[in-house]
Amino acid sequence: MAVYTDVSFEELTGLLAGYDVGVPQSFKGIAEGVENSNFYLQTANGDYILTLYEKRVREVDLPFFLGLLEHLAARGIACPVPLRDRNGAQWTTLNRRPAALLTFLHGLSLRRPDVVHCAEAGDALAALHAAGEDFPVPRANALGIASWRELANAVSGEADNVQPDTRSLIGEALEFLEPNWPKALPTGVIHADLFPDNVLFMKGKVSGLIDFYFACNDLPAYDLAVMLNAWCFESDGFNVTKARALTQAYRRRRSLSDAEIEALPALATGAALRFLLTRLYDLIHHDPMALVRPRDPREFVKRLRFHRSVKDASAYGIA
Amino acid sequence: MAVYTDVSFEELTGLLAGYDVGVPQSFKGIAEGVENSNFYLQTANGDYILTLYEKRVREVDLPFFLGLLEHLAARGIACPVPLRDRNGAQWTTLNRRPAALLTFLHGLSLRRPDVVHCAEAGDALAALHAAGEDFPVPRANALGIASWRELANAVSGEADNVQPDTRSLIGEALEFLEPNWPKALPTGVIHADLFPDNVLFMKGKVSGLIDFYFACNDLPAYDLAVMLNAWCFESDGFNVTKARALTQAYRRRRSLSDAEIEALPALATGAALRFLLTRLYDLIHHDPMALVRPRDPREFVKRLRFHRSVKDASAYGIA
Repeated sequence: MAVYTDVSFEELTGLLAGYDVGVPQSFKGIAEGVENSNFYLQTANGDYILTLYEKRVREVDLPFFLGLLEHLAARGIACPVPLRDRNGAQWTTLNRRPAALLTFLHGLSLRRPDVVHCAEAGDALAALHAAGEDFPVPRANALGIASWRELANAVSGEADNVQPDTRSLIGEALEFLEPNWPKALPTGVIHADLFPDNVLFMKGKVSGLIDFYFACNDLPAYDLAVMLNAWCFESDGFNVTKARALTQAYRRRRSLSDAEIEALPALATGAALRFLLTRLYDLIHHDPMALVRPRDPREFVKRLRFHRSVKDASAYGIA
Repeated sequence: MAVYTDVSFEELTGLLAGYDVGVPQSFKGIAEGVENSNFYLQTANGDYILTLYEKRVREVDLPFFLGLLEHLAARGIACPVPLRDRNGAQWTTLNRRPAALLTFLHGLSLRRPDVVHCAEAGDALAALHAAGEDFPVPRANALGIASWRELANAVSGEADNVQPDTRSLIGEALEFLEPNWPKALPTGVIHADLFPDNVLFMKGKVSGLIDFYFACNDLPAYDLAVMLNAWCFESDGFNVTKARALTQAYRRRRSLSDAEIEALPALATGAALRFLLTRLYDLIHHDPMALVRPRDPREFVKRLRFHRSVKDASAYGIA
């Protein structure tokens, strides 16, 4: 939520000389995404986002991220589209960082999405999964189940200081998940972080999906499980009406197999654990000079406990 | 350069219900200004900035700041204009903070303004001084000469750790300035912080002046002295050609009296001292959890030494 690397007018002008976007009219650093520097750019031709990739996004992953956005947009998904420069490149270098110019999406994210928004977002996730099916570039999930044990070890000393009994909760969830993680489910391109922050709405309809920098190849049903965590909990608990609306809308566009449905409690447990672990890690290893405030991990303690209490997918409104 | 206070879609919608600006289409936190939370807002009607005033800007000063912007805009100055809500108010409350909706100005600030830009900016400063002449609300300069001794005391213990001999330089400058500060110069509304950051350009012309939250009643010639510090130094020293261009353009629109010209070396010394002191203070008292990186005070050590070496206003290109 900050600008790490400054870009001067002169640097911007030099960059834009490589693109066919016209003369800049406004240029502002914006508080968007995690750990990249983002700028809002208006030119005579339209609105754009300039992203400078800071250390968390590796240049070796840009053919996946930027290629995926172009691929999805060509299939009708409302996502930022990287512009190609006059040489056809999807990114360049600015201030010693990889930099891409992307289309700006209109719309606003919601802090408190209602049931109708959950359905719209579930439909958008299914459309994303369908559009990603023939994307050929692979990228492993760096924050998938294979990473959780190491993350758990890195936070184990401090976890109970954040909330009592968190360490044992994490250990128990890992002991359950490692032998029970589904092995034979369909795989595909997933967003892996489709929180309400990353879905823009206009007049009640999804107008854009953003922040694809956790996207990877993994289980589409796990992506749905991330959304059950991100969209359906309220301060006083899990809202099964939202979950039903979300999953029904998803299934109208992409069917879920019996195996995917059966796996949902484990997948949702895993998704809650993933966000609990990374939030704990970010909190414990927080650089006080960093410009990003760490997010509270504790809500995912509650969510993890909920999923561990679930008997089957009916708890998520799936008949 | 950050967003301190979040504003949700729902809070935004509630706020906009009080204004006649149409439906929101985009809303992004932007990295603008110092220690306020700023958001870029697009609606069907146009582009706006929503500012939430954090602790540095006191609500008691808003009639001055917002009234001044409306006053200046009515006299042709390209500055942000606060919208009045349906009740005629220039600000409201959002998330327990005073909040104002202002017009968004197009244009880009320059990191390395050239001679022509210095002339344009000097002309804009004179126009600002002329337009402010009949603004009736008073505001004292909280960072004027009366404040410098206290600031100097607050940084004296650490100043030499930032750069050797800075403490004695500050002491010497204060000893010179306190008895020699001009007493009988014209006063008026000044911007007091017109750095290149705060001047937007389009096609080589000034398209906007922004960030008026240091504006106050003080000496217009001191405002010009701030600009000599902010626009005319380069990494290898003072560029008198830029100073000549800036002051000549200023004087074409607003004449300088002999007394103002004679006072320029003292005023420029004072301006350098003011920014040295506040940057030292911000660096020494920097909250590591703050989202603003402190700016380097050391360039103002050099500038202060330069002004102390100056014999008269001819050093600034004034014949």
